[in-house]
Amino acid sequence: MNEFALIKRYFERSDDDKSDHGGAVVQAPAQGVVQGIGDDCAVLSTDPDYETVISTDTLISGVHFPENSDSRLIAQRALRVNLSDIAAMGGQPSAFLLALTLPELNETWLEGFSRGLREVSDTYSCPLVGGDTTRGPLSITISILGTVPRGRALFRSGAQVGDTIYVTGYLGDGAAGLGLLDVPIQGDGSEARSVDYLQKRYWQPDPRVSEGLILRDYASAAIDISDGLLADLGHILRASCVGAELTMASIPLSAPLIDTGTKKEAITLALTGGDDYELCFTVPIDKVAMLELKVREGLLSAFRIGEISAKEGLICRDGSGTVVDFSDAGYQHF
Amino acid sequence: MNEFALIKRYFERSDDDKSDHGGAVVQAPAQGVVQGIGDDCAVLSTDPDYETVISTDTLISGVHFPENSDSRLIAQRALRVNLSDIAAMGGQPSAFLLALTLPELNETWLEGFSRGLREVSDTYSCPLVGGDTTRGPLSITISILGTVPRGRALFRSGAQVGDTIYVTGYLGDGAAGLGLLDVPIQGDGSEARSVDYLQKRYWQPDPRVSEGLILRDYASAAIDISDGLLADLGHILRASCVGAELTMASIPLSAPLIDTGTKKEAITLALTGGDDYELCFTVPIDKVAMLELKVREGLLSAFRIGEISAKEGLICRDGSGTVVDFSDAGYQHF
Repeated sequence: MNEFALIKRYFERSDDDKSDHGGAVVQAPAQGVVQGIGDDCAVLSTDPDYETVISTDTLISGVHFPENSDSRLIAQRALRVNLSDIAAMGGQPSAFLLALTLPELNETWLEGFSRGLREVSDTYSCPLVGGDTTRGPLSITISILGTVPRGRALFRSGAQVGDTIYVTGYLGDGAAGLGLLDVPIQGDGSEARSVDYLQKRYWQPDPRVSEGLILRDYASAAIDISDGLLADLGHILRASCVGAELTMASIPLSAPLIDTGTKKEAITLALTGGDDYELCFTVPIDKVAMLELKVREGLLSAFRIGEISAKEGLICRDGSGTVVDFSDAGYQHF
Repeated sequence: MNEFALIKRYFERSDDDKSDHGGAVVQAPAQGVVQGIGDDCAVLSTDPDYETVISTDTLISGVHFPENSDSRLIAQRALRVNLSDIAAMGGQPSAFLLALTLPELNETWLEGFSRGLREVSDTYSCPLVGGDTTRGPLSITISILGTVPRGRALFRSGAQVGDTIYVTGYLGDGAAGLGLLDVPIQGDGSEARSVDYLQKRYWQPDPRVSEGLILRDYASAAIDISDGLLADLGHILRASCVGAELTMASIPLSAPLIDTGTKKEAITLALTGGDDYELCFTVPIDKVAMLELKVREGLLSAFRIGEISAKEGLICRDGSGTVVDFSDAGYQHF
């Protein structure tokens, strides 16, 4: 079996190859997929009442994940990170393309990678419909498509003065996990459980797809937190021409994050660490009560962390009420 | 200006940045683009009577083009190669995403790259709507979207016994050009002109978009020739469960290709060389006359090269009528 036959085995299911071929990824025909892998393009059918949302993200070995990482985890992270962009638009994932660059043929690596990809693909009903495989330094570029009802996509630019600012979950875990990737999990004591939790939060971020669907009815603006709360909320503020005031004590921090360092370190990771892939979103005052009812009903996870203000910039108040000005950090992408 | 501000300068035009900012790529708002660069996803509106075709292709430095190549040419080739996949489906290009991995910040490189990208983007009315920029070994992944009227996409699988096989233009030029990339163009003699032509055919392949649109009315199957005629026609044969007989004397060869080597070398490059990005397509017998009328009217370029047969495999007849069996080569992707 040559390299391309092998890749076909792991990723393809062509029309003339419907029988079980022992490959790891066998995509079920998905709604809207007229033609999947196996032609010059995939063909997707879009419901006339919907628009297409599309995004692309690259993960490079040694830059976005440590070299020699578990290929199953790399695949999961690559797809989850892309799904998060669809979630941030209030989109329903529909399909993705994979551009995979590999330094060498390694069956074990490919089997793990295709298994990881399939697990996430199945969970989110988002099939692989095409791609390209090339030889070179390991990198993974996924391009993902989703759908939103016409005119209902969530943008960064809709925040208004007085809107309440929320995040969908704990912040800082992803960055803390990245710093702990080399730590072996030994035993099942509380420290081991904390490290395990944080590593998982890095490798398997939870794209907030179901939250995004609900937020179409409530949020005025949304973004996913990939670069850290300050940087990503900064994008909302800049796109919406507003400022914000955050209550640092309200920023949700997980127990494992606090357990593995000081409270100050935890807050710093939560504000600037990135890699969380929670959503940050804003809700107009007249929709706050309804949104919080949904939260109490357990339909989505959301923590209120501050308010949109007219004064440009990002103001954080610490536990004692002292103002800490992060205006610059909030506008700095990297 | 930091790296990301610079990239923004070359590629972005956000809603809050409509004034002239001195950047090289300023995308005009395009039909169907609800939201371009600047949010978590681009949002595209699809006409209800159309389907979306989508594809992705990666170009790696040192693998798909020589290291230290002109960045303007790299960009042009990257986008043209992707446009060719849309053409092969009979699609109208609508937008593309760019995942660009750069080893270092180099303003001259970025300026050339963005200029090359814009030139092709403008020519084909296919705007850049989003992307990702990362640090790492130079590679370019473009994901491209197009539209086709519902149910009218051209597939590889529709060829029938008796169909006539065509290609849209000269074959072998791309591969010959690749072999001559290091040859400097000196003077304007016929040899210099030949080398210049072949180099251009490699760097600036002509995606047959307008041909693809016409072929929706005539072709039973189509593919773009990226890996060589035998390999790519082989994909049509395999997907359609048919064979083919080619007349080698009918395969169109450019004068510069013949000038730079022997006739035998030219034929070998045409059959197996790849990098041409012409379309290979099949036309049912009852549509051949109409198709050839279109060719005579100058509406598309097409050369008749053979016929689809029931017997599996690819038979080539040389000038003396001798059969050369390329069955194996035809089914081998690489």
